[in-house]
Order: sequence, then structure tokens, then C-alpha cells
Amino acid sequence: MDAEKIEIKKKIEEFARKIYEEFEKGNPSFKFIIRGNLKYVEYDPTKDLIKLKKSYGYREFFNLGHTRKFTQTILIAALAKKLISENRTASLREVFYQLRHTIPIINEDTFYEQKESDSVIEDLERTLNIIREKIHIKADRRGYVYGNITMRDRSRGDEWNCSKLGMGGWGVPSTIEEIEILDINADFVLVVEKDALFERLIEERFPEKHKAILISAKGQASRGVRRLIHRLRYEHNLPVYVFTDGDPWGYYIYSVIKRGSMKLSHFSELLATPDVKFVGMTMDDVDEYDLKRVTIKLTARDEKRIKELMEYPWFKKNRNWQRQFNKMLNKKIKIEQDALAAKSLEFVAEKYLPEKLSNPDRLLS
Amino acid sequence: MDAEKIEIKKKIEEFARKIYEEFEKGNPSFKFIIRGNLKYVEYDPTKDLIKLKKSYGYREFFNLGHTRKFTQTILIAALAKKLISENRTASLREVFYQLRHTIPIINEDTFYEQKESDSVIEDLERTLNIIREKIHIKADRRGYVYGNITMRDRSRGDEWNCSKLGMGGWGVPSTIEEIEILDINADFVLVVEKDALFERLIEERFPEKHKAILISAKGQASRGVRRLIHRLRYEHNLPVYVFTDGDPWGYYIYSVIKRGSMKLSHFSELLATPDVKFVGMTMDDVDEYDLKRVTIKLTARDEKRIKELMEYPWFKKNRNWQRQFNKMLNKKIKIEQDALAAKSLEFVAEKYLPEKLSNPDRLLS
Repeated sequence: MDAEKIEIKKKIEEFARKIYEEFEKGNPSFKFIIRGNLKYVEYDPTKDLIKLKKSYGYREFFNLGHTRKFTQTILIAALAKKLISENRTASLREVFYQLRHTIPIINEDTFYEQKESDSVIEDLERTLNIIREKIHIKADRRGYVYGNITMRDRSRGDEWNCSKLGMGGWGVPSTIEEIEILDINADFVLVVEKDALFERLIEERFPEKHKAILISAKGQASRGVRRLIHRLRYEHNLPVYVFTDGDPWGYYIYSVIKRGSMKLSHFSELLATPDVKFVGMTMDDVDEYDLKRVTIKLTARDEKRIKELMEYPWFKKNRNWQRQFNKMLNKKIKIEQDALAAKSLEFVAEKYLPEKLSNPDRLLS
Repeated sequence: MDAEKIEIKKKIEEFARKIYEEFEKGNPSFKFIIRGNLKYVEYDPTKDLIKLKKSYGYREFFNLGHTRKFTQTILIAALAKKLISENRTASLREVFYQLRHTIPIINEDTFYEQKESDSVIEDLERTLNIIREKIHIKADRRGYVYGNITMRDRSRGDEWNCSKLGMGGWGVPSTIEEIEILDINADFVLVVEKDALFERLIEERFPEKHKAILISAKGQASRGVRRLIHRLRYEHNLPVYVFTDGDPWGYYIYSVIKRGSMKLSHFSELLATPDVKFVGMTMDDVDEYDLKRVTIKLTARDEKRIKELMEYPWFKKNRNWQRQFNKMLNKKIKIEQDALAAKSLEFVAEKYLPEKLSNPDRLLS
């Protein structure tokens, strides 16, 4: 077991020992940081990150309103220790099934549904100040990597280069904590929202021609992908650009990669990458590349979401983003990244991206 | 360009030339096979496949009801020829954007929405009797492969082994027509519905211990995954087992892999794999492994879907499947594959799968 794992196991044991000892004295309890929603998060403009306010809550064993959550937290902590000791990982769903049982005599279920165990896992993450991947509990996997990057899976000893896997690319697992990055021969990272664009750029040999690492987020980036982006930026000093649809959903994908999400705001500094830049699609692109005829009319849901985003502090204070949002609302349009195919299939790789990437004024941040 | 591509390009040119020549004589037209739905498909019990009845339709240029579809088909055919010549592939969405424009003078749009171009692509597939991947038009990608199989991407020259990519595995691209299978060291293929189970089995080293190729379908199998399963079975003679949730949605995932879908019934013989076997989850498993407490109550939607499946000819004539369906309806339960974690995380790899795979009586087909 490596030093970090021993450290984390010790932290869980100390958490449990403290509670165990408190049983001697009376009412055992532990303190935890209340989870993020608009009320409990704050925007740090200096670091350009969403952060959690330090608002504390308590769980006491001898408090009827707390007993259930208290017991659930101990069950999750015990499983986490077991997972680390056995060097196994478990999905959120597996954790739920592992721990779900009926307690005899009181005839009460430990967990009724997965929502309950998910929320206790989040509490425990914040209580121990350890992201769930490091206590071997993992979210769903999603996303692919292509490009001249050599990786090694510490737990298995495998080594591979992500540019030698054909069109397929490497599937990003749900946790990348065991992945070492051995060697990178690239100048920047490009994260794309859609698999179709990922395949288009590979087919056009964009990564080879521009020395790029390509990541497909497949919609909202998974935790694995966000950790990978973070590490490529801060461990390997690569600039990162994000390329999404020109709609509020695409802009929020960018926002989460850059500034973290509200729910996970406690770990923004591990999961977010504040200095990523946005390469497209923008409303200015619609004019610049004469794409009006392939735009799509905003739905009522789009408009509502745009107005919400405009009010988030990190968008609110940014004149460039406000301009894009207002332009969308005025013209009542949005545009997909696939729409660049209206020019030609190779347009995105041969003209759009090279032009925008070489012109910092045209990137949003 | 390889012989097959030259052949396909010639087929498109002949299709076009015939129409062109008919313009001289009067009213150009072409014949196409009407697409599959319950009315137009039939179940072939000998081959255990869903097949399309040969019901023909016509499109005539000088028929106001046909002109639009006729023109659209010519546009798609012309693009297909261009794609093959340029050795590019295009996603369904890219095809839509490539061809969407307003025809001057009559001021009519070629395509209003992607649904239109998708359906014309399907018509053209059946008209030319060529699956869309071979005319370089591709569906969305989904799914991963792990195991001792060496592949080569003909278009790029890359070579890799899918057991040397760590936990990640290889991402199955949207088309695998350029993928050569160079070497396999495995006794069978196991297709799993969910990524979480895929990662579980890799972590437990199931593929190494049992010489298995593992494929994650991630829900309904993509066309790329279905082609891959088909090729592993018929080009490489590996038995294939499918492992899904014990619910109507899981059973239909199995059914589509095995017998094809109604919509694509014209290509069942390329996309389906009739002799795959079903390894779980079944209602018998619930009794056998004492899993009652981790079952889930059927919803009204589940019940409705089960009753539909029971009426499909290939399920209707199969006593074993009818028994499972009836058991579900009587007990009003379903069970997820993740629920095996209630036993222990390693249970699925150490006990459940080895026991069932070594006992042909317990497999459904």
C-alpha cells in the first residue's frame, strides 16, 4: 500500500476511534461541512473558482433526527476502509447494494434508495476532506482520450500511448487515481463536447498536425475526465481549451470544467481547472463564419437557462460572456458544434480551430 | 482504395446513372424496400433472426408526393460517393448539416430536420443493400472492449492489445469497418450491459482468469459494438454470452444483439448474432442466490413492456423466456446486475458468472 493510502486509512480510523471513544462519555457526534447549493457556495474571483462556505453541521447519535444519517455515515466509512485495505473500488450503486440490509429487531433498512447512500458519501468526503476516488468509491465513467500521451496504470502495470489506438482512443475509467502520466508530446489539450467532433478531429489528423491531446467529454464531463484535465494543466503545464455547442448547456459544461460545480464545490481545487479557455461555439462565430442558416431557434427552456447562467456570479461579472448571452437572447438562436460541417467536413479542423486558437482575442475565458 | 470500396462506389454510380438515363425517357424512379416495423418484419425461426419482408415502394421524380424524398435520396447518394472517394466518414448529424440548404428560386429547404436525412439514409441502405458504415456514414459511438485481443486500424496503421490499456479499455468507435482483428487469445466473449460491471470484472481480473473478451455495451449496444460481436462470433468462432439487468430493458438489449432490431432488420445478417446466449440476471437467480431483498418492484411501464416482449414471436415461442416473464409478472419484481454486490463485490466474478457459464442448463437462449 502506498503512503497516501496508508494516510487515508489512518484518517478513517481516527474518525472512527474518536466516535468510539465518545460512546464511553455519552453522546458521540461528528462535525461536517454542509453541502453546496447556491446558498452555501461562494465565488472566489481571485482564484476564479466556486468554493464552499465553511458552514458546519453536526450529527449526534442520540438525537432521533440524526441517528439514521449518523449510522449510515459509519457504515460508509467502514466500507471505505475495507475497500482501501482490499485495494478494490466500488461504484455508487455497488456501495448502495453492499450496505443495504434490514437491521434485525428494529426491522429498519439501512438505506432505502441510492440517493441516501450517495448523499452520505458526499458528507463523508467533506468531513474527511478526501475526494471519494481516494476512498475507492467512484462515479460513472464517460469520455475518451486521443493523442501523444503515454500512460501507465499503476495497479496493473500496463503502459500505452493514446495515439496508437486507432480511431477508438482510450476509454477514461471512472477513477484515474491509479493512472500515471509518463510522457506527453503535445502543446495543448482540446476538450470537445461531442464524440462526433472527437472522431472528426481524429479523422482529420488534427492532434498530429497541431500537437494536441484530444478529450471527448461526451456531454457534462465525468469526474474522471475533470481530474484528468486538472492534472494535464497543473502537473504537466499544458494549456486547455474547451470546445462545446453554442447553447447554455455547452456553456455550462465549460463552466463546470473551469470553475467546478456547486455540488462538488468543496473539491473545486482538485476537480476544476480555472484557467481553461473557451474556443467555441460563440454567437460571434455565427457572424464571422456566416453560419446563420444552420442556427437553431432557442426553446423556452434554453431562454430560461441562459437567464440563470447570466446571474451566476462568475458569468455576471464577465462582460464578454454577458455579450454572448445577450446576443443569443436578442437573436433567439443557438448553434451546435456539428453545424460547422455545413461549410465542409474538414472546416472545423482546417480553418475554424486553427484560426481561433492562434488568435487569443477570440477566445473567451 | 480497396476492392470493396471500389465495388460500393460503382454501385452508387450505377444507381445514379440509371436515374440519369431515365430523365431522357420521362419519369425517373427507383425501387426501395419498405423499412421495418412490426408489419413489415418477420421472424425466421430456422435462422432465429428478425428479417425484413420484401415489400417494395417506389419513388418517382415527377410525382409531387415523391419529389422531395427522391431529391433527398440523390443528395445523400452523391455525398456517400464523395465520402468514399475522400476516405472520410460522417456522422448522421454531419450529413444533415452538410446537405441542409435552401434551393434557390423555389426557396425550399433540402432537409428541415435530421429525422428526414436519417430516414433517407436508411432507405438508401436498403435500396443499395449496403450498410451505412460501408458508405462511410456512421451512428453514435458507445462501448468499450477489454481483453487479450490484438487489433489494427487499417486506416491509421496503429496496432494495440485491449488487455494492455489499464482499467480504461479501448473505446469502440462508431464504425469498426477499418478494424482488423489480428490475434485473439480468449475462449469466449462476455457482453455486459453496464460500465460499472465492466470495471468490476476488470478489477477482479475475470478476463485473465477465464480467458474472456469483455465488452461493455453501455445500455443498448451501438452499431459498432454489434458489428464487433458479430465478427468475434463468425470470423473468430468465439461463443458469446450476454449479461444484463433482469428487467425488460435488459432482456431487449440481449434480444437486439441476438436477433437484430426491427428498424435494422434488413441487415440482421450483418449486425445480429443469433447464437449468443443469455447468462443473467434471471428470476431463477433471485431464488438460487437468495437475492429477494435486493430486487426492485416493477413499475407500470415495466409491466407493459414485459407484456409487449412476451408477444414478440421470438420470445413467444420460447418456453424458458415465457417462464421468466411470467415469474416477473407474478412476483412483480426485477433485479439489476449491480445487485450481486449485496453478496460481496467479488461474488459476480468469483461465483455467479463461473457457475452459470459452466452450466449450460442455466443459460437462456
